[in-house]
Amino acid sequence: MTEYIEALQHLAEQFGKLQGVGRKTAMRMAFSTIELDADSVQEFANAIIEAKQRIHECPICGNLTDRELCSVCEDESRDRSVICVVEDVKAVMSIEKVREFKGVYHVLGGVISPINGITPDKIRFAELLARINRDGAEEVIVATNPTPDGEVTAMYISKYLKPLGIKVTRLAYGIPVGSELEYADEVTLGRAIEGRQDV
Amino acid sequence: MTEYIEALQHLAEQFGKLQGVGRKTAMRMAFSTIELDADSVQEFANAIIEAKQRIHECPICGNLTDRELCSVCEDESRDRSVICVVEDVKAVMSIEKVREFKGVYHVLGGVISPINGITPDKIRFAELLARINRDGAEEVIVATNPTPDGEVTAMYISKYLKPLGIKVTRLAYGIPVGSELEYADEVTLGRAIEGRQDV
Repeated sequence: MTEYIEALQHLAEQFGKLQGVGRKTAMRMAFSTIELDADSVQEFANAIIEAKQRIHECPICGNLTDRELCSVCEDESRDRSVICVVEDVKAVMSIEKVREFKGVYHVLGGVISPINGITPDKIRFAELLARINRDGAEEVIVATNPTPDGEVTAMYISKYLKPLGIKVTRLAYGIPVGSELEYADEVTLGRAIEGRQDV
Repeated sequence: MTEYIEALQHLAEQFGKLQGVGRKTAMRMAFSTIELDADSVQEFANAIIEAKQRIHECPICGNLTDRELCSVCEDESRDRSVICVVEDVKAVMSIEKVREFKGVYHVLGGVISPINGITPDKIRFAELLARINRDGAEEVIVATNPTPDGEVTAMYISKYLKPLGIKVTRLAYGIPVGSELEYADEVTLGRAIEGRQDV
């Protein structure tokens, strides 16, 4: 069908590698790309390369950044005694959007999921411990997604940290159960931060 | 919110320039892009540049191609006495997929739309006439979308070509009215080609 324009087909395949992009959407995007003017196309290609080259994990918290540290760890006004533990960078973005949380983050890069063979050593949990020991955090807010794996992870972290005398809280259930943080609206997320509870 | 990773924000803006891609989708795609390995990212950027550089309109029919002529015009077995007139390249792809049509195409690059100031001289209609005069087509199948503007265009072409002794047909209404060719399934499109009628 469409294989007869090789360069277009090839471009559509690249779009198809992105999460959530199906075959038809990929082809529409390929079309839409070549309809852009030449400068925009060049800018697009450069942006892809640059984003990949410049963006890396913050060495402190695992958040993404294109500078040395992420914007949160770089900000000296943030309260280092409260660490919000999240699954991924998207969750950091969602929570930052609310402008309610003044502490710092720790990105686990996943959740414990025994069924999928993801044990605590497969996520950045040791880094969290090391950081708590080093910087002396007083409270850890576990903001993993309200999914079964997210809950298991929260429980694990709580059981591990509480004996060390650290206050462990969980986001209040303002967020709809079974969904992902990324989709929560800002008001709901704000309430969830305010109403965080002991685990 | 997300402006704190400049390179990511910039990449998301590029995705956002594509048709039908909103702000949230664009950001998800930007994330998904930097999750690809470095080679894939390079291939993606190259594919964008290459597609833009290599793909151009077929000088005969206006279809897209990355060679000199498009694959249809290049194919000597296609029947040049029947020209299927379509709005855009996506329609060519849709019809080619059915493998029912053995003639050639003419891409108008739009439809007549008086309300939007698109008069017949704004679409590739003169090129169609020149081509008919030059190559002596016997039948023109007008396969514009079954929308009001598509109908107006079909009527215009019919009124213009019939006095020249050319048979003008329109795709049968197997295709759901008000939608676009691109979304028609292959069986429906196949029937529409079989049952094409005089205008």
